[in-house]
Amino acid sequence: MVEKGEDMDKVNITQKFNLLKEHWSPKIVGQLNDSYVKLAKIKGEFLWHKHDYEDELFLVVKGSMLIRLRDRDIVLGEGEFFIVPRGVEHMPVAEEEVHIMLLEPKTTLNTGNVQNERTVSGTEWI
Amino acid sequence: MVEKGEDMDKVNITQKFNLLKEHWSPKIVGQLNDSYVKLAKIKGEFLWHKHDYEDELFLVVKGSMLIRLRDRDIVLGEGEFFIVPRGVEHMPVAEEEVHIMLLEPKTTLNTGNVQNERTVSGTEWI
Repeated sequence: MVEKGEDMDKVNITQKFNLLKEHWSPKIVGQLNDSYVKLAKIKGEFLWHKHDYEDELFLVVKGSMLIRLRDRDIVLGEGEFFIVPRGVEHMPVAEEEVHIMLLEPKTTLNTGNVQNERTVSGTEWI
Repeated sequence: MVEKGEDMDKVNITQKFNLLKEHWSPKIVGQLNDSYVKLAKIKGEFLWHKHDYEDELFLVVKGSMLIRLRDRDIVLGEGEFFIVPRGVEHMPVAEEEVHIMLLEPKTTLNTGNVQNERTVSGTEWI
C-alpha cells in the first residue's frame, strides 16, 4: 500500500538503472498494492529456485536473456515480459548484461526457496 | 494468482499494442498475484476519478502524457512510470496518442468511483 504523500514522484527507469552497480541485486523503485517494482542488472547464470506463494514478472528493458524452466527455455528480448507462476522452478541467465524490471510481492526473496550467498535483502530503494 | 500451465507464454509488448484499436480501453496481457498487467492506447482527456482501495501504476511505453492530480501535474515520458496511490484523484491526459502499460488489482475499474459511458469491463484479454 502506498501512503498518501509518499512515493508521489515519477520514476525515470533509465536514470534509476544508472544508479545500479552490482549484478543480481534488485533494488526497489516503486511500491503498490503490497508489491514492489524493482530494477536489476544481471549477467551470467543465477540459480534454480522457485517462489512457493508468489508470481514474479520479468520485463526486459535492455538486452536479452533466458529464463530457463525445467521443461523449456523462455527467450526474452527488449520489450518482452514473462510471468513465472508461483511454484515453478526457474533460472535466469544472461550472456551479456541485461536490464530488467521485476514485479513481485514484498515478501519475495530473490533466491526463493534457496538461501545462500546469492540471497540479498531485497528491501533497498534506489 | 496464475495457475500452472496457464499464461505460460512470454508477451511481446509491441505486438500486443498492434492488436489494440480503441482508445481508453485497456486490455489484459498478463496476471500475477491478483493483479492484471494491461495495455492501453490513450488520446485526449479522460475524467477525474479515484480508486479507493487500489494503487495504480502507469508506465509510458511510447509517447508522453500528463497525469493531472488535484495539486499538480505529472509529466510522463517514455520509460517513465508513476504510481497513483489509492484515494488520490487523477485525470490522465494525452495530447497525441500514447501507449501505456498499467498495473492494477483485478478489482480495479477504469473510471474508479465514477461509472458512466467511459467505463469499460476491463476484463478482456488480447
